[in-house]
Amino acid sequence: MKYCFGADVGGTTIKLGLFTVDGEILDKWEIITRTENDGESILQDIATALKEKIQEKAISAEEVIGIGMGIPAPVNSEGIVKKTANLGWGYKEVKKELENLTGWQVVVGNDANVAALGEMWKGAGHGEKNMVMVTLGTGVGGGVIMGGRPLIGANGAGGEIGHICVNYFEERCCGCGKKGCLEQYASATGIARIAREHLAADKKDSILRTYDLDKIDAKIVFDALKEGDQLAVDVVEEFGEYLAKGLADVAVVVDPSLFVIGGGVSKAGEILLTYIEKYYRKRAFFANKDTQFAIASLGNDAGICGAAKLILDSQM
Amino acid sequence: MKYCFGADVGGTTIKLGLFTVDGEILDKWEIITRTENDGESILQDIATALKEKIQEKAISAEEVIGIGMGIPAPVNSEGIVKKTANLGWGYKEVKKELENLTGWQVVVGNDANVAALGEMWKGAGHGEKNMVMVTLGTGVGGGVIMGGRPLIGANGAGGEIGHICVNYFEERCCGCGKKGCLEQYASATGIARIAREHLAADKKDSILRTYDLDKIDAKIVFDALKEGDQLAVDVVEEFGEYLAKGLADVAVVVDPSLFVIGGGVSKAGEILLTYIEKYYRKRAFFANKDTQFAIASLGNDAGICGAAKLILDSQM
Repeated sequence: MKYCFGADVGGTTIKLGLFTVDGEILDKWEIITRTENDGESILQDIATALKEKIQEKAISAEEVIGIGMGIPAPVNSEGIVKKTANLGWGYKEVKKELENLTGWQVVVGNDANVAALGEMWKGAGHGEKNMVMVTLGTGVGGGVIMGGRPLIGANGAGGEIGHICVNYFEERCCGCGKKGCLEQYASATGIARIAREHLAADKKDSILRTYDLDKIDAKIVFDALKEGDQLAVDVVEEFGEYLAKGLADVAVVVDPSLFVIGGGVSKAGEILLTYIEKYYRKRAFFANKDTQFAIASLGNDAGICGAAKLILDSQM
Repeated sequence: MKYCFGADVGGTTIKLGLFTVDGEILDKWEIITRTENDGESILQDIATALKEKIQEKAISAEEVIGIGMGIPAPVNSEGIVKKTANLGWGYKEVKKELENLTGWQVVVGNDANVAALGEMWKGAGHGEKNMVMVTLGTGVGGGVIMGGRPLIGANGAGGEIGHICVNYFEERCCGCGKKGCLEQYASATGIARIAREHLAADKKDSILRTYDLDKIDAKIVFDALKEGDQLAVDVVEEFGEYLAKGLADVAVVVDPSLFVIGGGVSKAGEILLTYIEKYYRKRAFFANKDTQFAIASLGNDAGICGAAKLILDSQM
């Protein structure tokens, strides 16, 4: 039997998975991300963890075909990152370094692209070859899969759909420095801000008024929505319209058959899709009207699955 | 020696080119597009023209490796079109039919994608693998090349960037039925409309006032711009800002290293880029700030070149 590893590197933990080349997941576990000293021990920690795992499982090094890895930064097609916000790395030849440390072939991708590949392979995108995964968390991330492969782009920054402009009259700055980015409205942070604005501007009774303003988060909004709270409905309508504006623009550029919605906000479930699809159908270009929507189904495993798929595909 | 053909099918003429497999263009010519009777003779006309050409050049059928073809409609990866606006075709298995008529392998793509591939191969995009070609003509078309290959999409509608929304408050409809599409501002038609609006709203002296309002077109505007006409400058600034808004959004999705600007409007030349780049640099996401701009250089040959490249790549 032959095996491969998938690694999903985050700012706090590194998720690791052992797979057969047939795609069966045999084991998964986590290690701490040690970001101190410019993250210099991260790759060594991964190498050590994987070598310990094959010992534990009595797998020989020759039975491992390689490692796929997702990184929270733009990664070019040579597996080089220029800068990371959360790992401490500056310019780093990630692929080459981890290959030298392990002796195995390594393929590296951006974490959002890799998660999208995971959802395509084993999750909500199963069977699709042209899909976009939208991650609604603290920010808004995206991964574009075209013809079954992640769209990387010239700088490894393909699929940064959180920074599409959906409001040309916004005066507040996004974290990126631009104004009116999708991320300012459709992230968990954005939803909480929209809720605070509605609470200030609108006199309606609402469950949301029972919380301190600075405690209100996306989960509270969606819980209130499910209770039929009208102010929460207004907030989610606004969120849905902004997200649909952005996704209609994404669709004319890459023409996906499916949008998979993931990230913390997607825990609200299928009800989320109602509010996105309604505005999407209204705003989409005719060729993209039938694009489907689904909630991501792999949760935290999307990254390790996509990473494993990355190394498997590289050897086909 | 081995050869291939490139065919660029338009609503009025079909451009044809004979190439060596090394990429040298040996001959190019045109035939009329006969759209009558649902365009039923178009593929037969192409087959006849190509067979006559190999006779004329004393090339045997076995020396031809195939035909690449660009079509003015969405084409899926199996070479099937569902509908064309200008050729009279409904559902048509273009690849299969032309293969049956000629005995040669056929690859079919959308004309904008194919032209982009041509510019990448032999034109302004030479050496790039991740680029977007923007065609500013009667409408605004686009072709996205990622990793050296056209981005097709689920419905063959990838790169329809003329239908990105750049003005959420527009009240007029685009030809597609949406409101605020890039095409409404950055096409030749859009530029002429912006000019008429400025002439009505602004009392400034202008060369443009020497023309009948309904005679004003993009060429007249750019000619006036080159004379230093201030009203023409205002018009082109507005055009440049709308186009930059759209291209900044395209860039966050597909992260190209280069935008190639083609189509009739691009005949204005390099001065056009000044007005686009100025606003693009202001609006682009930081990862896409360095995207380059160039004017398309192949003119009418982009289509046949890209079509030839399509068939050559399919056999690599």
